[in-house]
Amino acid sequence: MNFSSLSQAIAQFLQEDIGTGDVTSQAIFSPTDQGSAFFIAKDSFICAGMEIAALVFKNKIPDLAYTCVEDGKKVKSGDILFECDGPVLDLLQAERVALNLVQRLCGIATLTDLFVQEVKGYPVRIVDTRKTTPGLRVLEKYAVRVGGGYNHRFNLSDGVLIKDNHIKACGSIAQAVSKVRKAAPHTLRIEVEAENLREVQECIDAEVDIIMLDNMTIEMMTQAVQLIGGKSLVEASGGVCLETIRTIASTGVDIISIGALTHSAKACDISMGFK
Amino acid sequence: MNFSSLSQAIAQFLQEDIGTGDVTSQAIFSPTDQGSAFFIAKDSFICAGMEIAALVFKNKIPDLAYTCVEDGKKVKSGDILFECDGPVLDLLQAERVALNLVQRLCGIATLTDLFVQEVKGYPVRIVDTRKTTPGLRVLEKYAVRVGGGYNHRFNLSDGVLIKDNHIKACGSIAQAVSKVRKAAPHTLRIEVEAENLREVQECIDAEVDIIMLDNMTIEMMTQAVQLIGGKSLVEASGGVCLETIRTIASTGVDIISIGALTHSAKACDISMGFK
Amino acid sequence: MNFSSLSQAIAQFLQEDIGTGDVTSQAIFSPTDQGSAFFIAKDSFICAGMEIAALVFKNKIPDLAYTCVEDGKKVKSGDILFECDGPVLDLLQAERVALNLVQRLCGIATLTDLFVQEVKGYPVRIVDTRKTTPGLRVLEKYAVRVGGGYNHRFNLSDGVLIKDNHIKACGSIAQAVSKVRKAAPHTLRIEVEAENLREVQECIDAEVDIIMLDNMTIEMMTQAVQLIGGKSLVEASGGVCLETIRTIASTGVDIISIGALTHSAKACDISMGFK
Amino acid sequence: MNFSSLSQAIAQFLQEDIGTGDVTSQAIFSPTDQGSAFFIAKDSFICAGMEIAALVFKNKIPDLAYTCVEDGKKVKSGDILFECDGPVLDLLQAERVALNLVQRLCGIATLTDLFVQEVKGYPVRIVDTRKTTPGLRVLEKYAVRVGGGYNHRFNLSDGVLIKDNHIKACGSIAQAVSKVRKAAPHTLRIEVEAENLREVQECIDAEVDIIMLDNMTIEMMTQAVQLIGGKSLVEASGGVCLETIRTIASTGVDIISIGALTHSAKACDISMGFK
Amino acid sequence: MNFSSLSQAIAQFLQEDIGTGDVTSQAIFSPTDQGSAFFIAKDSFICAGMEIAALVFKNKIPDLAYTCVEDGKKVKSGDILFECDGPVLDLLQAERVALNLVQRLCGIATLTDLFVQEVKGYPVRIVDTRKTTPGLRVLEKYAVRVGGGYNHRFNLSDGVLIKDNHIKACGSIAQAVSKVRKAAPHTLRIEVEAENLREVQECIDAEVDIIMLDNMTIEMMTQAVQLIGGKSLVEASGGVCLETIRTIASTGVDIISIGALTHSAKACDISMGFK
Amino acid sequence: MNFSSLSQAIAQFLQEDIGTGDVTSQAIFSPTDQGSAFFIAKDSFICAGMEIAALVFKNKIPDLAYTCVEDGKKVKSGDILFECDGPVLDLLQAERVALNLVQRLCGIATLTDLFVQEVKGYPVRIVDTRKTTPGLRVLEKYAVRVGGGYNHRFNLSDGVLIKDNHIKACGSIAQAVSKVRKAAPHTLRIEVEAENLREVQECIDAEVDIIMLDNMTIEMMTQAVQLIGGKSLVEASGGVCLETIRTIASTGVDIISIGALTHSAKACDISMGFK
Repeated sequence: MNFSSLSQAIAQFLQEDIGTGDVTSQAIFSPTDQGSAFFIAKDSFICAGMEIAALVFKNKIPDLAYTCVEDGKKVKSGDILFECDGPVLDLLQAERVALNLVQRLCGIATLTDLFVQEVKGYPVRIVDTRKTTPGLRVLEKYAVRVGGGYNHRFNLSDGVLIKDNHIKACGSIAQAVSKVRKAAPHTLRIEVEAENLREVQECIDAEVDIIMLDNMTIEMMTQAVQLIGGKSLVEASGGVCLETIRTIASTGVDIISIGALTHSAKACDISMGFK
Repeated sequence: MNFSSLSQAIAQFLQEDIGTGDVTSQAIFSPTDQGSAFFIAKDSFICAGMEIAALVFKNKIPDLAYTCVEDGKKVKSGDILFECDGPVLDLLQAERVALNLVQRLCGIATLTDLFVQEVKGYPVRIVDTRKTTPGLRVLEKYAVRVGGGYNHRFNLSDGVLIKDNHIKACGSIAQAVSKVRKAAPHTLRIEVEAENLREVQECIDAEVDIIMLDNMTIEMMTQAVQLIGGKSLVEASGGVCLETIRTIASTGVDIISIGALTHSAKACDISMGFK
Repeated sequence: MNFSSLSQAIAQFLQEDIGTGDVTSQAIFSPTDQGSAFFIAKDSFICAGMEIAALVFKNKIPDLAYTCVEDGKKVKSGDILFECDGPVLDLLQAERVALNLVQRLCGIATLTDLFVQEVKGYPVRIVDTRKTTPGLRVLEKYAVRVGGGYNHRFNLSDGVLIKDNHIKACGSIAQAVSKVRKAAPHTLRIEVEAENLREVQECIDAEVDIIMLDNMTIEMMTQAVQLIGGKSLVEASGGVCLETIRTIASTGVDIISIGALTHSAKACDISMGFK
Repeated sequence: MNFSSLSQAIAQFLQEDIGTGDVTSQAIFSPTDQGSAFFIAKDSFICAGMEIAALVFKNKIPDLAYTCVEDGKKVKSGDILFECDGPVLDLLQAERVALNLVQRLCGIATLTDLFVQEVKGYPVRIVDTRKTTPGLRVLEKYAVRVGGGYNHRFNLSDGVLIKDNHIKACGSIAQAVSKVRKAAPHTLRIEVEAENLREVQECIDAEVDIIMLDNMTIEMMTQAVQLIGGKSLVEASGGVCLETIRTIASTGVDIISIGALTHSAKACDISMGFK
Repeated sequence: MNFSSLSQAIAQFLQEDIGTGDVTSQAIFSPTDQGSAFFIAKDSFICAGMEIAALVFKNKIPDLAYTCVEDGKKVKSGDILFECDGPVLDLLQAERVALNLVQRLCGIATLTDLFVQEVKGYPVRIVDTRKTTPGLRVLEKYAVRVGGGYNHRFNLSDGVLIKDNHIKACGSIAQAVSKVRKAAPHTLRIEVEAENLREVQECIDAEVDIIMLDNMTIEMMTQAVQLIGGKSLVEASGGVCLETIRTIASTGVDIISIGALTHSAKACDISMGFK
Repeated sequence: MNFSSLSQAIAQFLQEDIGTGDVTSQAIFSPTDQGSAFFIAKDSFICAGMEIAALVFKNKIPDLAYTCVEDGKKVKSGDILFECDGPVLDLLQAERVALNLVQRLCGIATLTDLFVQEVKGYPVRIVDTRKTTPGLRVLEKYAVRVGGGYNHRFNLSDGVLIKDNHIKACGSIAQAVSKVRKAAPHTLRIEVEAENLREVQECIDAEVDIIMLDNMTIEMMTQAVQLIGGKSLVEASGGVCLETIRTIASTGVDIISIGALTHSAKACDISMGFK
């Protein structure tokens, strides 16, 4: 990931949490008081984002020395995830932002991993969506990759997705595809949303690169996959959950996209202590 | 809420989601194509943040005309929450950011409301914490208020909270309080974390304004409240959930703080349609 | 184009040109002096970017009324391209930035049009590259479209392009493609640079989506197109100029990319007058 | 030049080119892969801006070690201009922005040098104008100096230039000069544009510091220089090209300003390789 | 103080003072010329802000080595306050901003100290107000603390202050207090402005935490303090000057707030020299 | 003045003063409560900056209607300076920033006017320096003009000033002037600081445009003016106060520069009321 571009966002996050200063700690600690802090897991989960935590602390302590657990490792309650030294005032001012970020990223990686484990054995990609937290998309999509998932498009400019409103406006899938194919960079695949088998057939006829089966029943999905017969990639989307994903994978789709990876992951429990 | 200060953050969120342009929609719609969009609830929840959605659309359509449901209203599946007109290209480019924000805010308001309903009849405040999403604190704390909750401090500078590390560094609660009282603006109350009855007594002796009972059992909490006897405000904190909150309230504490309000609320289901 | 996201860049451009104020004009004009300004062509060219000029003036005059020539129109010396009214001080302070931008954009559109005219009759796309002016990429790529060209990827994240260094690091085209296909979003096509026919064959074997023929002779290009036989898109790249482009198109390639469109276009001659 | 103020602009340029990440390179290289990169000239030109290239790489590699050719040196095809080591991912992500900048700056320095060589022997300054690329003025004006040229004012606030619209609004050159002299800081010279000998005489009468001969014929220019007789600096402006500049210089003007230095310089051919 | 958050403001200040470059010094010094600079006091005062001066120089010279006098020390004419080495060009470009800041901060600390000395022996806090220089509040409030004063609220969100307009809108102090107490975070004290003894009594009845005696005579202030009798903190405000402050302190108020500390402090005389 | 470029600075100032919201007013007023506010003078002074106050309110109330006193008018206690209507919450949140700015600007204009009145009858310019408040230079220099003064250079790039350190580094005034004249844009005058008559003579010999007499006695200043005899502009500088300025003017200098105009002006007393 392009970590270095995060420094401005991290500065904003710290400003949000520190305000005009840490009125409590500044009354107690001197700028020269040193300490050794660590992050400790209070539960089992997939570790993600400790390098981001380091970036947060580096905003305050530019020459920070630290050690941390690698992203993707499964950790359990009591494991030390991150350790660093520095002025106590800086450690305390960076604590909450760093924790808020990594707790969320670990949560996303852990939920992604659950979905990935569920489809083990099927040649299918678990992918995210654009339903991410505003301001945190690059980080959240990174956590999905840490959890074994893949990324769908990052934004409206790096992927083509023709949806119902686009189709309606053009009159048909064929015409919508034709218009977009004419205008879009040749470097992007053309993906089209289909809600039923008739639309799937129209997509096949239009030779689209990816067909998104939108909120279909398992039965219809199965028929769609057979109809498509490998002529394009097939993505299942809509209301996917841990209970249904294995059956969805069994239909033979290539990709399953899940908004819940980023909008419904629960924060993992991590806290900071001092040695 | 100070809505006008959000415009820069909203511009960043839109930039994140739009990138260099909506390659699909720009191939299909002309800048002059007009449309009427609406947000529709797909579930029951407490509505929060529709004015924020309006601000997102206004970034693209400065003179936006819109109608929306008031914050705090209970809505149900099928209810229209927000309606506006404008260029289709602008509506589609603002859609995802607006939805990502309001789905989260409705989720927080709805979860807060659940906790608030749970303690009905007790004179207790449900408050949030600093465990918010980096970059969204003002919005998330607003959603807590919409849900009937109250705000704890917004950041390290607008509230004093003396925790274990502060106490350890000073040798005693008395000394920590003395140091902070000497340095902090007189406009701030002094809050201290206590983990047992001995520490509660030390807080009472130090005449602190607020005593936070940190991760205490219900039994110890009850004793602490009696010990304090109204001489300071009492806040219960740590691992509060819907199952335990009513019992906690019954101990007589004045305030119950819950990190889950902001870090574990699930997104509400809302989607955008065109008339 | 996503015009509204340009306002911050335009503010920076104006700041760069105005500094602490227009010391000459402020000595002469009062803030209430009104004027009518127009842009006039001093040459023949393809008009591009007058809406951008309007955005520059709007930074100073938010409720600007203006009329302008549509992008893509061929204009000739003496044609009026843009007209607006407002305080003379604002018109004079916006003049240079607006002109500097549109002179460049018209230059790019005009040069692109020259290339496009040159390949008339061939089913080939003229596309740009990442060799754009830092800070102006979205605008310059827009001007290429105005001139009848198409866009290659906008940046490193919205297109895959496997080059010699990537291939060398992996040991073979097959392995590089395999690595990237595994990691990249499924929404992106895989493009690979080939320098000779052996590499073209490796690309075909790896079933890449787009093969870029890098700096090949016309003869080799012809053989490559035959070898590929429609199994993937073919892009010609490297040292393309007006003298050679028609021959390149005649080889049957699908796409011709030209850095000169953006790094070597000459500014068109436009000046501002007052009525 | 005040290099350190460029870091924010460089960060924006990199963001523009990298987007959400280099999807190709990140699939292939690990963050720990190291490489040695160099810039190589593919043509003869005046070198300018290698320290700027270093700043671009430093954004990614803060402790960059590098060597580079000095600005102003004449280089030829095959010369190594810049060398540095670092993580391959960082080198590849900085490559395009660094090249786009230095190719332009070398182009400007080289074109300036051509004009400067052309007037050898005449005591005349070649100067630039405000016709620079929005966002790059400080860099482009620096490249003019590298090429042996001088700078005209940087913006509307650090130089006085009374033009036709100012004069028309005041009724006469005398009155315009009087107004501006009264208001402008005493640290700025007063420059006035004259289109004919009558206006030149009015400038002389008004005792202006610099008279700009705007688009005059060589004959009129010669008469103007004689008329002025050293009582003020004389600047020739308008449509200056390599074919005409020596004759212009021979008229005895002190300064020749050329917009083409910055708006029409062609990019020099430089590419990056790995050792 | 949270020094690290100042770097962006300092960059803006330097940009304001340097513009497009130091045209004089750049003509004379080479980027490699080194020098040793020092700040020297030209008067007696309380030193404040030398670490801020260091931050200004660090913007130009990231690895600056420096020594400086500690904040709060009383210095006299001829004392060296700050010393550092570095490129002369950088030292000269940072000089004016650094001096402008520390001269103001020393002035504020010195004026605060004068007030503090004046009330020696009385248990009263001298505090500042929100009448600070826009953009410099954190720095100016820091200088007040250096001078022995204390801070009132930093902004509208970290302190409650109910003023006449609030009271008028609610109908009574009781109702205003009730409304604010219901809405404000429990971490903030409730302060109310009272203009006469009747309002003081209403404040007492409403059990507010702090009563601000607004522009009262010494006599009324004395009566107010007696009426309050320690039931809340008492703050005197309005037109406090060095001549009146000791008498005000003698009334028994706990806090005296003085806008003049920040809006009327005179700059101390400090200049920079080279060894 | 270039007012429109101030909007970003004003947004920062408001953010500084509002923080996360006006906790007091938001508890009392609804967003729909309207009010009419006015600024009232509590003293006699020269009015300056009411349009700036309007810009502050416009940040909150974009379509603000207001009336205000013209800059430069002499007002007296009780005069209404500014009136506007809008939501009470917005008026209260903009109040302090607007007042802090205009109180300072009126102070500067008033002090400048005092100096200007003092030299009435002498053909001398009162000018400011770079000793302004960081972040407020454009505003403060505007206030100097409102008070009848003039501006010295705005920053290091729009004026040449050769000082002792420059001279020392070059060995002589002649050499320093020669170096700077060679490098600086021809649009800038050359100003040199002289500390004694020998240096004045060197300046005359070097044909500099402006000679700054630095901290000279009245007697030496008189001799210097005679020595110079109109061959260059003469600026007096250093320790100028109201008591000495008329005598300084009587020596025949053209310009008198005074740092105190901006670093020592006292804030004028203005307060906001509601109708």
